[in-house]
Amino acid sequence: MDKSFIKTYLQGIQNQICQALEVTDGLGRFKEDLWQREGGGGGRTRVIEHGAIIERGCVNFSEVFGKTPEKVLKDLRIEEDVNFYATGVSIVMHPNNPMVPIIHMNVRYFEMSNGIYWFGGGIDLTPHYIDKEDACYFHQQLKKVCDRHHSSYYLTFKKWADNYFFLKHREETRGVGGIFFDRLYETDTISKEQRFEFVKDVAHTFTPIYTHFMKKNSVLPYGEKEKSWQLFRRSRYIEFNLIWDIGTRFGLETNGRAESILMSMPPLAKWAYDYQPADAREQETLALLKKEIDWVNG
Amino acid sequence: MDKSFIKTYLQGIQNQICQALEVTDGLGRFKEDLWQREGGGGGRTRVIEHGAIIERGCVNFSEVFGKTPEKVLKDLRIEEDVNFYATGVSIVMHPNNPMVPIIHMNVRYFEMSNGIYWFGGGIDLTPHYIDKEDACYFHQQLKKVCDRHHSSYYLTFKKWADNYFFLKHREETRGVGGIFFDRLYETDTISKEQRFEFVKDVAHTFTPIYTHFMKKNSVLPYGEKEKSWQLFRRSRYIEFNLIWDIGTRFGLETNGRAESILMSMPPLAKWAYDYQPADAREQETLALLKKEIDWVNG
Repeated sequence: MDKSFIKTYLQGIQNQICQALEVTDGLGRFKEDLWQREGGGGGRTRVIEHGAIIERGCVNFSEVFGKTPEKVLKDLRIEEDVNFYATGVSIVMHPNNPMVPIIHMNVRYFEMSNGIYWFGGGIDLTPHYIDKEDACYFHQQLKKVCDRHHSSYYLTFKKWADNYFFLKHREETRGVGGIFFDRLYETDTISKEQRFEFVKDVAHTFTPIYTHFMKKNSVLPYGEKEKSWQLFRRSRYIEFNLIWDIGTRFGLETNGRAESILMSMPPLAKWAYDYQPADAREQETLALLKKEIDWVNG
Repeated sequence: MDKSFIKTYLQGIQNQICQALEVTDGLGRFKEDLWQREGGGGGRTRVIEHGAIIERGCVNFSEVFGKTPEKVLKDLRIEEDVNFYATGVSIVMHPNNPMVPIIHMNVRYFEMSNGIYWFGGGIDLTPHYIDKEDACYFHQQLKKVCDRHHSSYYLTFKKWADNYFFLKHREETRGVGGIFFDRLYETDTISKEQRFEFVKDVAHTFTPIYTHFMKKNSVLPYGEKEKSWQLFRRSRYIEFNLIWDIGTRFGLETNGRAESILMSMPPLAKWAYDYQPADAREQETLALLKKEIDWVNG
């Protein structure tokens, strides 16, 4: 199982997910942009805008390689001059209806010419209004996937997501979390193939989960008030991505393709000074933006 | 001239500017929030929203002190355990009318218990549509202020602003620049008092400059098209502040007061994938978002 096998598999995942989202949306169509990276590699950016359910979203594939950025070598304390290779699929969906949650999914593979490699990824849900049953359903699906691979995965990666998808400056989580993992390499008991099986399983769980929410929640009624709250929640999403998200910052600081990286931005967002919600559902959502909530068992 | 003298002077500047902006706006009134910092000090956040001319803006004063953050000590390569003191005024204005530019101004004083001190600051203009005459007027006013203090100031600090207010990931400047300076301490030929005189002069030039643009440009006509472009330009402002602005990042990473720091965010902003303007004025503005334009001489 070499990098070209993994890359081809991930491109297939991109295709499957785009197709399923188009079918469920019913109106929106993905627009594809192929791009090349100066130092080596490139990507397939796929954007959907003005859909029936999805207001703006992206399913991006990329495969980049070349001289390892100084920053990475420094972080890994590597002093040799090694090359790197990275491939992944990255998704963010911003729906029209505030009752449908924002979702993010990413799977990635990284290797260096000195033999170091790992898998990483994650999936997390950001409801504008937190519905405990939806959050429970979401975490149950993730737990099911994790449990198929290792009994420790769900709790470990759920905790990692709680800590990762966290707005430190506001002391609030981005949403109801999910799972996050990085630097998964082979061990005595877990092979590279098994790691990849897990990553594939995570990627394949995206479509059933999100199409479930698209179908179920896009028919729920909403008005100006809910739309306004959605725009406030989106501004928090922006704050997380631009201030704290390591992938976004790394991409922008190392001359990644800005339009592809910033596809995670919502179409419209709103800020107000010190907004204090009077609405009970808004208050409840804020109260639930905490780490360490056991969503599976309620 | 000790820190308490500087602090009191800056509070006076905050008062004068708020008063002048209220008079010129005619409708909006500043709302004040006093806050305290856990480690020492606090601030006076003043916010104006829903004015006749200003859609959202802030004139913030702060005075913070205590144990110097690790990050600062590391940056300055200081190994002793010293205390710091910092005071400043920080302004951002987002107007309703897209013909009125966004403006930012900041003046600050920093000192440490080991005797190190400096002044910093800057002022820069971000028009949604660049008007060369307005940009020329703006830079002429700044040059006048600089020239009163040192013949090298304007060119040095203008260049510094070009490099500082720059979105590297898009290779575009935030607007038409202005002046930016940091770590101005006394030298054999320039005393601490003279440094402070310069900083005071920069602060005092804010009101005549911005009220000039408020009066002149808020009467210009605009429609949906211009409002939409304004929202796109505001998203770039957000990208700069959250990704590149050192003050914003430092504040958020060291548990500064998020609501005060993020007052620089516009009330509403918009993103679209790979937006390519067809409008000639939009195209002209993008073409002018470059470093090293000699605005004074056109």
